[in-house]
Amino acid sequence: MNFSIKGKDKNTSARAGEIMTDHGIIQTPIFMPVGTAGAVKAVHIPELKSDVKAQIILGNTYHLYLRPGLEVIQAAGGLHKFNGWDMPILSDSGGYQVYSLANTRKLTPEGVVFNSHIDGSQHTFTPEKVIDIQRIIGADIIMAFDECTPYPCEYGYAKKSLGITHQWLKQCIDHFNNTEPVYEHSQALFPIVQGSVYKDLRIESAETIASCKADGNAIGGLSVGEPPEMMYEMTALVCDLLPADKPRYLMGVGTPVNILESIALGVDMFDCVIPTRNARHGLLYTSEGIINIKNEKWKFNFSPLDENGTSFVDLQYSKAYLRHLIHSQEMLAGMIASLHNLAFYLWLVIEARKRILDGSFLEWKQKMVLRLAQRL
Amino acid sequence: MNFSIKGKDKNTSARAGEIMTDHGIIQTPIFMPVGTAGAVKAVHIPELKSDVKAQIILGNTYHLYLRPGLEVIQAAGGLHKFNGWDMPILSDSGGYQVYSLANTRKLTPEGVVFNSHIDGSQHTFTPEKVIDIQRIIGADIIMAFDECTPYPCEYGYAKKSLGITHQWLKQCIDHFNNTEPVYEHSQALFPIVQGSVYKDLRIESAETIASCKADGNAIGGLSVGEPPEMMYEMTALVCDLLPADKPRYLMGVGTPVNILESIALGVDMFDCVIPTRNARHGLLYTSEGIINIKNEKWKFNFSPLDENGTSFVDLQYSKAYLRHLIHSQEMLAGMIASLHNLAFYLWLVIEARKRILDGSFLEWKQKMVLRLAQRL
Repeated sequence: MNFSIKGKDKNTSARAGEIMTDHGIIQTPIFMPVGTAGAVKAVHIPELKSDVKAQIILGNTYHLYLRPGLEVIQAAGGLHKFNGWDMPILSDSGGYQVYSLANTRKLTPEGVVFNSHIDGSQHTFTPEKVIDIQRIIGADIIMAFDECTPYPCEYGYAKKSLGITHQWLKQCIDHFNNTEPVYEHSQALFPIVQGSVYKDLRIESAETIASCKADGNAIGGLSVGEPPEMMYEMTALVCDLLPADKPRYLMGVGTPVNILESIALGVDMFDCVIPTRNARHGLLYTSEGIINIKNEKWKFNFSPLDENGTSFVDLQYSKAYLRHLIHSQEMLAGMIASLHNLAFYLWLVIEARKRILDGSFLEWKQKMVLRLAQRL
Repeated sequence: MNFSIKGKDKNTSARAGEIMTDHGIIQTPIFMPVGTAGAVKAVHIPELKSDVKAQIILGNTYHLYLRPGLEVIQAAGGLHKFNGWDMPILSDSGGYQVYSLANTRKLTPEGVVFNSHIDGSQHTFTPEKVIDIQRIIGADIIMAFDECTPYPCEYGYAKKSLGITHQWLKQCIDHFNNTEPVYEHSQALFPIVQGSVYKDLRIESAETIASCKADGNAIGGLSVGEPPEMMYEMTALVCDLLPADKPRYLMGVGTPVNILESIALGVDMFDCVIPTRNARHGLLYTSEGIINIKNEKWKFNFSPLDENGTSFVDLQYSKAYLRHLIHSQEMLAGMIASLHNLAFYLWLVIEARKRILDGSFLEWKQKMVLRLAQRL
């Protein structure tokens, strides 16, 4: 994996870059649609290319490990072969899901014992095991095993947790270096900065992570309920400490505004379920603002979904029709809204990249941040 | 509306025809995907053209009347404009849904009073009202209001019900003749043969319907639980009595085998929720037989969904991947399987048409009927 910076914004810390992987180039800043169980919800794989313009998608280690299971994924030849997505994939470490989804869990310095939310079966994730799993999934970018602390989180807990996360990181790196990819393509391991909302812990963590000299670095434990200002403060602090010549990935963020603000702070990669999850509840993100398509005001609005939209659904379907579909609980509603929102998110980061390269990023960002938060 | 017969099979009553409508030509025999609430479940409108190869779709009067309601549909300029499907549409009369879905219903010779399954609100359908509603929906082919008798059904009830259905038909035709289309295109009204499984009633009904000299004629009240042999017997009986120079539509039928057998009896048009509903439960219809994709046997089968399939999903996705998606309750599962099944149904009727025209229909049908019923 190789990262090169193609341009830097003069007014902010934003950068435009390129990540080279064995499955192709990713132009940054980039948003990565979440394909939890090996599928981006409600979107066909070819549509991810033709309409969403996705360059990399996510797979969740926790979900894929439990179902279909590693035997199936390995027999398929890895996740790329299994789901037919032949461009880059990033897998998370499963840490976040173990905490948010598993029925019961017990954290020890050795790892986490948990019960599957599907069938209650007991499993153990250790740093070494999580690397082994991600070798089998075969993502181009894989993540270190960490504890994602909740918000709020007491200082004492956050400090202790960070110690474990750093210890696990060391084990992950050792195991990663001692193992080979299972398939023909190479994999890069990203460590994750934690430390909750405590500056000294974030600084300690960012310095620890920076010293690993990984191919890319992630910021975790944010966007878990803390105020946005706190998230931006921590992101800015950490971005300044992470290597400038490696991509920075802010995990699980966020709204369109969060993404623009974080690009300005020096973040290169994002993932979030907001565009697809909110789509299924009728929330559309557009370049003019947010539409709650369920509202009565769209009942007789037969104008296209989004005249400025980049995917086929934007001119194909009207606002009134989508409103009807979502009230009727038609699957097509989630399909239309998910495709629209993901295409909008990709448009947003592609446009941000252009603006970084042509020097108009800050002005554009400030205008967009006001617009994107509007309710239409 | 105009119907012309392009070829007849020498060994069976099958025919290949063409229905001309103001929204284009329908080549028969044809299968019509069901778009209950103005959308075919889990399939994008453009995919209905590009992959399913649909030539006409259905809309349900009961559903559309309740939601989004006639005000919205009329303001949109009719259902074609509302959902963006610019090819032919057929609307049913709502009679079937009033009986199967409404919370409570009371049938009188004047009409049916029922409560919405959505909000409990009370509504009345009369023959005249159902014509008015279908004028506003604006389908190219609209249906007379009838009572679809259940199975089993006592002779006395079936006879009395048939009397009401025929009285309503007279009212529907009068009201249809006394009203104009709401939009620029013309509409055709199809009467419906009822009579349960009683030969004398079916004969009486078919003769009554034939005497109306409508642009096309439908056979209702079948595929409601009776044995297939009984359905075929009634269909054959009725087809022989309905005008040969008008299209015959067998409502709500059926499996691929039902469709081939009924084409042989002289049926030209079909609709059914089987391909989409069963798709969502993991049942795939293919030219080699039926696949229950949930089964363990497909867990490691990475071959394409259907090597002989005609839609993009057939080569895009593997059996093991679809199995995983359906077990994971991913929306993409229903999307893939629905598109596959509908494309298969359309392939089946298009192939039947070719076989009728080239004289090989009977031989092909007999071979296919054995194959299509197989469980793979």
